[in-house]
Amino acid sequence: MTTIHELGTPSALIDTQRMERNIRRMQDRMQAMGVRFRPHAKTTKCLPVVQAQIAAGAQGITVSTLKEAEQFFEAGIQDILYAVGMVPGKLGQALALRQRGCQLKIITDSVAAAREIGRFGAAHGAVFEVWIEIDTDGHRSGIKPEEDALLQVANVLRDAGMVVGGVLAHAGSSYDHDDPQALRAISEQERAGAVRAAQRLREAGFACPVVSIGSTPTALAAEDLEGVTEVRAGVYVFFDLVMRNVGVCGLDDIALSVLTTVIGHQEEKGWAIVDAGWMAMSRDRGTQKQKQDFGFGQACREDGTVLEGYTLSGANQEHGILSRAGEPDGRIAERFPLGTRLRILPNHACATGAQHPEYHAIGPDGRARAWPRFYGW
Amino acid sequence: MTTIHELGTPSALIDTQRMERNIRRMQDRMQAMGVRFRPHAKTTKCLPVVQAQIAAGAQGITVSTLKEAEQFFEAGIQDILYAVGMVPGKLGQALALRQRGCQLKIITDSVAAAREIGRFGAAHGAVFEVWIEIDTDGHRSGIKPEEDALLQVANVLRDAGMVVGGVLAHAGSSYDHDDPQALRAISEQERAGAVRAAQRLREAGFACPVVSIGSTPTALAAEDLEGVTEVRAGVYVFFDLVMRNVGVCGLDDIALSVLTTVIGHQEEKGWAIVDAGWMAMSRDRGTQKQKQDFGFGQACREDGTVLEGYTLSGANQEHGILSRAGEPDGRIAERFPLGTRLRILPNHACATGAQHPEYHAIGPDGRARAWPRFYGW
Repeated sequence: MTTIHELGTPSALIDTQRMERNIRRMQDRMQAMGVRFRPHAKTTKCLPVVQAQIAAGAQGITVSTLKEAEQFFEAGIQDILYAVGMVPGKLGQALALRQRGCQLKIITDSVAAAREIGRFGAAHGAVFEVWIEIDTDGHRSGIKPEEDALLQVANVLRDAGMVVGGVLAHAGSSYDHDDPQALRAISEQERAGAVRAAQRLREAGFACPVVSIGSTPTALAAEDLEGVTEVRAGVYVFFDLVMRNVGVCGLDDIALSVLTTVIGHQEEKGWAIVDAGWMAMSRDRGTQKQKQDFGFGQACREDGTVLEGYTLSGANQEHGILSRAGEPDGRIAERFPLGTRLRILPNHACATGAQHPEYHAIGPDGRARAWPRFYGW
Repeated sequence: MTTIHELGTPSALIDTQRMERNIRRMQDRMQAMGVRFRPHAKTTKCLPVVQAQIAAGAQGITVSTLKEAEQFFEAGIQDILYAVGMVPGKLGQALALRQRGCQLKIITDSVAAAREIGRFGAAHGAVFEVWIEIDTDGHRSGIKPEEDALLQVANVLRDAGMVVGGVLAHAGSSYDHDDPQALRAISEQERAGAVRAAQRLREAGFACPVVSIGSTPTALAAEDLEGVTEVRAGVYVFFDLVMRNVGVCGLDDIALSVLTTVIGHQEEKGWAIVDAGWMAMSRDRGTQKQKQDFGFGQACREDGTVLEGYTLSGANQEHGILSRAGEPDGRIAERFPLGTRLRILPNHACATGAQHPEYHAIGPDGRARAWPRFYGW
């Protein structure tokens, strides 16, 4: 039996009790609100995590690359939404998945892309199920609910023999808030925009069975999901320091951490040097402009106890600088001697996870199980 | 034959002509200055790149993880410096490499670590070659050249039967400059500090054969390397936008780029959306505080021609936002239609490379060869 004490450093740990609690919390909430839940696998790219989400009641998954779709389909998951705008160069890969039996849904937000999808589908005798991406907050891509383009895209798809499966919105700007009222407002804006787009499509004769919305903050802030059929969210399964600052979790909900070792000190400066640099933590400094800046991560003891005020204040490729906020800790070397093992909570679980070939899932029995993750495209 | 036009996106490209020119430039410079050169493999973690560096005259390599050491040793490279402070938990792995014939050198900057190395070496009948890390700019770790600890560490090592192989310094703060005079000054400070530390060791009876210094900016700025025996540098092999701002390369020296596809537009905002987000580029925003901010990267055409003023101004996990500096480009969709393929030059080659399982090396014949890289620890 491998335990946490035997793992090399740096390595990525999952606290499986916290993970299960996070999964349960989201799934219960969605069930209470009467909507399906489609977790975003991009956060973990890890089969055992996604299997736990499905076991808890998730219906289908969301992916951000076709490689993720292929990997999860090979593992037996059939209902997959590829939630990045489809381009001609990727249609062959999408078609191959459908031909193997995958219920792959693709998305678009433009007439140009809809034409290409239709042309390719017609040429290959394939019917793609396409969802139309709706923009409710100007965050990134999508068609605004009232735009003419919405019906133009739907018509182009229908005329080419494709299925208009639904609409989806993602209020990515929810990450920029930290006030419950503002979060509820952006969540309602996401819901209302997606529902309005679906209504316009239905009035034009499209069934538009799916109305899909979501982000971790809006999924947890929503008070009413009238008209929505499914919610998507990703980072909730691990949470992170950015989500803690947004206000949707506490430090003791964060299920991902990086195990590290103290490799040296600069006592005059109050620094301990650890072997988790940005290669292990990622370069994500998502809390920098939030209400509390955690540097490259919040330090905890090896057992997970938070070390209040100690953060990774700096990071090079394989070196992290651990220091205390405010007055430098003159006793840093005594407090954290050479070889001390610590855990660092990440700013952004999606980014930190991506730096590691595998997770080490730590169960209530203290045993560490290796859970591989996908990498690349 | 695979060409660049057949590669999926996003993917990491190496322009091998630029890479060879960068290797030649550094190696010629080192030979002219009469010092050995030990490239840092952490930038590429890629065997064909390191083999090209060695073929050009490099003597040994530097690594930042023991996994890198193991991979390169298995590929036949024997002279390896592990340039991160050694801790007790990693001595077993280091010993195994030495026992297999690897001329592994390890480093330390503290009496505590020197004691552990000595104790472990004595207990296992092993003689470790240890270099002492010197701090010349307060950047990170190391002992200052005049500190008592320098001789204490050397004595502890010798008393335990270990070999004090030399001293090494790394002026990491050189990245913060962009003025040739300041770079020369920090380079001289790095040189002088390392030479002074070696002098103190020699006066105390240690041979201290190696005086190792380096970083890409200081290696290229140094005017005189009196007393230095070897130089280390990593990022010079690819260069990047940070190095362009530091002033040691031009945009047309940058050998690494990320191939991407336009997947959509927000015409009102002057945005093209591409499939290279931060997962492909890394979260490194190293040019943010430099003289020119390139966002998440500088856009080029598929053939490598720089698109002046167009950068990735924003990035989500798999979405990048391409826009023009200043006035938004109202003709963005016309200029870069759906499916357009572009290359993005990275802020920081080490961070961007790490996001990709392999490079695609593009030779003068236009052929793309897959070059794998190492990942994890």
